[in-house]
Amino acid sequence: MTTPVILDCDPGHDDALALLLAAADPRIELLAITTVAGNQTLDKTTVNARRICTAAGITDVPIAAGCAAPLVGELRVAPEIHGASGLDGPTLGEPTVPVRDEHAVALIRRILLDHPEPVTLVPTGPLTNIATLLRDHPEVAPKIREIVFMGGSTGRGNVTPYGEFNVVVDPEAADVVLRSGLPVTMCGLNVTHQALVTPDVIARFQRLDTDLARICVDLMTFFAATYQNVFGLADPPLHDPIAVARVIDPSIVACVPAPVSVELAGTLTRGATVVDLHHRTATPDNADVALHLDVDPFWDLVIGAVERLAPPANRR
Amino acid sequence: MTTPVILDCDPGHDDALALLLAAADPRIELLAITTVAGNQTLDKTTVNARRICTAAGITDVPIAAGCAAPLVGELRVAPEIHGASGLDGPTLGEPTVPVRDEHAVALIRRILLDHPEPVTLVPTGPLTNIATLLRDHPEVAPKIREIVFMGGSTGRGNVTPYGEFNVVVDPEAADVVLRSGLPVTMCGLNVTHQALVTPDVIARFQRLDTDLARICVDLMTFFAATYQNVFGLADPPLHDPIAVARVIDPSIVACVPAPVSVELAGTLTRGATVVDLHHRTATPDNADVALHLDVDPFWDLVIGAVERLAPPANRR
Amino acid sequence: MTTPVILDCDPGHDDALALLLAAADPRIELLAITTVAGNQTLDKTTVNARRICTAAGITDVPIAAGCAAPLVGELRVAPEIHGASGLDGPTLGEPTVPVRDEHAVALIRRILLDHPEPVTLVPTGPLTNIATLLRDHPEVAPKIREIVFMGGSTGRGNVTPYGEFNVVVDPEAADVVLRSGLPVTMCGLNVTHQALVTPDVIARFQRLDTDLARICVDLMTFFAATYQNVFGLADPPLHDPIAVARVIDPSIVACVPAPVSVELAGTLTRGATVVDLHHRTATPDNADVALHLDVDPFWDLVIGAVERLAPPANRR
Amino acid sequence: MTTPVILDCDPGHDDALALLLAAADPRIELLAITTVAGNQTLDKTTVNARRICTAAGITDVPIAAGCAAPLVGELRVAPEIHGASGLDGPTLGEPTVPVRDEHAVALIRRILLDHPEPVTLVPTGPLTNIATLLRDHPEVAPKIREIVFMGGSTGRGNVTPYGEFNVVVDPEAADVVLRSGLPVTMCGLNVTHQALVTPDVIARFQRLDTDLARICVDLMTFFAATYQNVFGLADPPLHDPIAVARVIDPSIVACVPAPVSVELAGTLTRGATVVDLHHRTATPDNADVALHLDVDPFWDLVIGAVERLAPPANRR
Repeated sequence: MTTPVILDCDPGHDDALALLLAAADPRIELLAITTVAGNQTLDKTTVNARRICTAAGITDVPIAAGCAAPLVGELRVAPEIHGASGLDGPTLGEPTVPVRDEHAVALIRRILLDHPEPVTLVPTGPLTNIATLLRDHPEVAPKIREIVFMGGSTGRGNVTPYGEFNVVVDPEAADVVLRSGLPVTMCGLNVTHQALVTPDVIARFQRLDTDLARICVDLMTFFAATYQNVFGLADPPLHDPIAVARVIDPSIVACVPAPVSVELAGTLTRGATVVDLHHRTATPDNADVALHLDVDPFWDLVIGAVERLAPPANRR
Repeated sequence: MTTPVILDCDPGHDDALALLLAAADPRIELLAITTVAGNQTLDKTTVNARRICTAAGITDVPIAAGCAAPLVGELRVAPEIHGASGLDGPTLGEPTVPVRDEHAVALIRRILLDHPEPVTLVPTGPLTNIATLLRDHPEVAPKIREIVFMGGSTGRGNVTPYGEFNVVVDPEAADVVLRSGLPVTMCGLNVTHQALVTPDVIARFQRLDTDLARICVDLMTFFAATYQNVFGLADPPLHDPIAVARVIDPSIVACVPAPVSVELAGTLTRGATVVDLHHRTATPDNADVALHLDVDPFWDLVIGAVERLAPPANRR
Repeated sequence: MTTPVILDCDPGHDDALALLLAAADPRIELLAITTVAGNQTLDKTTVNARRICTAAGITDVPIAAGCAAPLVGELRVAPEIHGASGLDGPTLGEPTVPVRDEHAVALIRRILLDHPEPVTLVPTGPLTNIATLLRDHPEVAPKIREIVFMGGSTGRGNVTPYGEFNVVVDPEAADVVLRSGLPVTMCGLNVTHQALVTPDVIARFQRLDTDLARICVDLMTFFAATYQNVFGLADPPLHDPIAVARVIDPSIVACVPAPVSVELAGTLTRGATVVDLHHRTATPDNADVALHLDVDPFWDLVIGAVERLAPPANRR
Repeated sequence: MTTPVILDCDPGHDDALALLLAAADPRIELLAITTVAGNQTLDKTTVNARRICTAAGITDVPIAAGCAAPLVGELRVAPEIHGASGLDGPTLGEPTVPVRDEHAVALIRRILLDHPEPVTLVPTGPLTNIATLLRDHPEVAPKIREIVFMGGSTGRGNVTPYGEFNVVVDPEAADVVLRSGLPVTMCGLNVTHQALVTPDVIARFQRLDTDLARICVDLMTFFAATYQNVFGLADPPLHDPIAVARVIDPSIVACVPAPVSVELAGTLTRGATVVDLHHRTATPDNADVALHLDVDPFWDLVIGAVERLAPPANRR
């Protein structure tokens, strides 16, 4: 049995791997790839999604571009992590897979209303598209099975001491999602920093010996260099595929229910996800919060997906 | 060579151990014990300091009571952790050591101005006394060697997801201290949660077989029960003695310089210490931030102090 | 020469009069009436717009419903001022003019792109529709001649001491509009409280002796009663038509350029419009701020419009 | 019968007139003049208070200097209004009246505890001294008859669109005073802007034809020039004496009870006094708020005081 999924992303190096995993794993039926501004501007994240699909031979999944700016304030992008293109590192050709002439929010809405069963949304960028969908089209709520997003943290952030990039870029959108009353799972930095791209992981990709695997190696090598530069981390965390992995096999990503709120007002902490793990306030639980990653099965999933997309026949 | 120290505390179970360590370790010359409202009201923390001194035979260190409320807003106390008395658990007699008829801030000021060399301040409660001192008596600044406080966190908090009790109780006071330009060392939850009171630690206290050690065991047993109840932690962290340990032997508490700010404005995060470990903002370093505790030598210090205060002649 | 106008409103008693003025004055070409949640829920404000159009015989202006909730947070409505229906007071029949099956934002966008010349937007409710338009469809900006809105204040507010209803309901939307770089004119409470519905004004409506005038009298009589009740004001201010009057004849509403910002963060002041009339900060001017109303010509405009919509042939 | 008063001020041009009024009016027994940082640094406001007393022959009222900085944050001064000295304009000699070697807060406390009847505090600068008194010495509360302060506004501010200088300089102090539960009267900009120093007022001072009157004319002339420059106001408002006038003759300054809070959190509105005149929130009244000044009797008081301090025998 497969789970119908819409991936809403802002590729982005780790988004690229999340996309490959979602497209290739047999337990997911990928209904659409939608893009949002985040790691780079909407134009760039959209072309990056198309480039990755082109490189991976993913030609049958509709792609649509969504919101170009957060609900409130100006867009913040992350060239210091993802480069000027948002996907620096590998040499990727011009995309041949098209982008729909339909706004991502409209596409998601249409798919949700048309699909026979509820659909899982997997946002791996700022939650602008999803919040806009929920706000403007509340009638789709019953058709959303759950929202499993990469973002936030139970502890430290990345762009600010307590702020994770996806939530800091659009705190109000995260707030809308977390207050929606829908089943929401948060895969935050606290768990994604367990998915470190070690030299062993790189070596496993290299052993696949396919063009796609080499692209992945180039992506992760660039990512490792920027993480080393910005955070002094030799092995960068591969955030986004964890949300996809949680959908494929929940046992790999252990979660606990907890109250999660977004700090909208702080001067230094705006965009922090405030997770009351010890229930010290009277706030009710509104999310499942990922705490622990089963590391080896996770990498098996990711590397297996890349292998599946570039099978032996494709090897040199 | 000894380091002259004033301990400013709000006992409090872990403050009690910090007091014993500061009074007994031969590398510290304890000039005064000052109290502040925090774990309990000022009346209670002051009588608790006197009770501990009485029980430990510390009779030659002046004690003075300070501020009864934070700089801004109402006092918040922690009976769920420290009990109704602020020092629940052991049976402690009425104190025989007196409290000075002088405000703690006046006493600290007088000592600082009179002492021949600069003095180290070790606050283990809310920073109200210290901030009041710095604000009202800026002339004492050159007589402060450094301020080594227990409080804050580089990661999660305790009373709120990102807020540690001492800083949450008086965020403006912490802000004054952190902006003072003086040498400041922050021993936050991130390091104090490395000092867990395990059954082995309890057993070491028990083997001392003195009345004072039994009081310590009772203190830590009560503390363990409330931490289990509130946080689900079997082994509670013994926060406050770490600041004293840092003064005694800096090598035990490894620190890095970093910019530390206090969130004064957040709705959910007020009182969070925002530590820019990766220097992602342009803020200059203003504190040494404790990151790692050398656990065994730490317990040797604490247990050694209790033993020194109740030597063999004192044993039953 | 006429000015092409789209009226974006949330009727609402004073919106109703603004609508009549915009529809009837020969200097305005009313291209559309769009509705937004505010004084009441979107369903109610939309049916109210249709009821007023039906009662006034305005049958050739397209009506479309827009956003049902502010960009951020929950909708706040004003039944204490406008009653349970949003337009309590007169007996209005069921509407016979239809509402478009098109979102207000889509309709505004289409009109802007299709119209041969730039169009003036006159929002008299929360700015949600306009902010959504500007955010999602930035390409329309050059087709907006100016935005003349009723909302905000240079001084006191109404729903809060410093907050005016339209801006308090959706502060982020007002922020988007005020930061848009487009020509914006703010007609705030400071000027609308110069348009008091005195007994003399009521008497002028009564002398028109038409059904529509009687509806207006009933509207203003209800409005006067709630203002008396809530604010102790015998003569209520007729806010919204002032924005329309400014478009018809700028000389009636005297303005000065000034920096206008929206307080998004205040605990007690969220939604206040902060107008730096004396340029005490370095903020550049971003709006024309209405300061003075020429009262008599204003009422001539409003009463003339009601008379024009219900000419002598219509009189009993 | 006289009212015992302590004037807590930061002269400042209008403070100077308030001081003269408080010292000379027979209905006030002026127990002390205390100074605080505000219009200028504490050193300057203190020497200014002494200069005015010297010039006016006020030699029997103790003067003490208080807090040099607000409870939170850095001091902001107002040289653009009061000049580099805080009292630019007249030529004032070196002061011959001394300043006490006692902190203002200690002096106020001592007077309150010693005086046989409750005393009225009249702060005309930032409320730092008064808040420190209330916070550190709660036992004095029953000895305070009322606190009548100049500060805040029901409408627009001066240093920011909604912020009045005295409250903006130390919002937390104003918050402490307004939450104290003591009888508090706020004389804000809304009423002080009714006390305009018109040419007629200047002429009345000139007709006194004394050295002190000439100093007052020079003060007000300088004040008029800076107000013209900063606010475009030809006739400056003489804020501070209104608080004194309210104590002398309450009928001159009409007040209503209302809830008054201080915005501590706003980005653009920090320090705004939020006055819920229409009781739209459930907040209970905590202050009497001055709304209307009886202008002519007010000037009679002020000018009469200056005349009384420099009687005919003193005239050239």
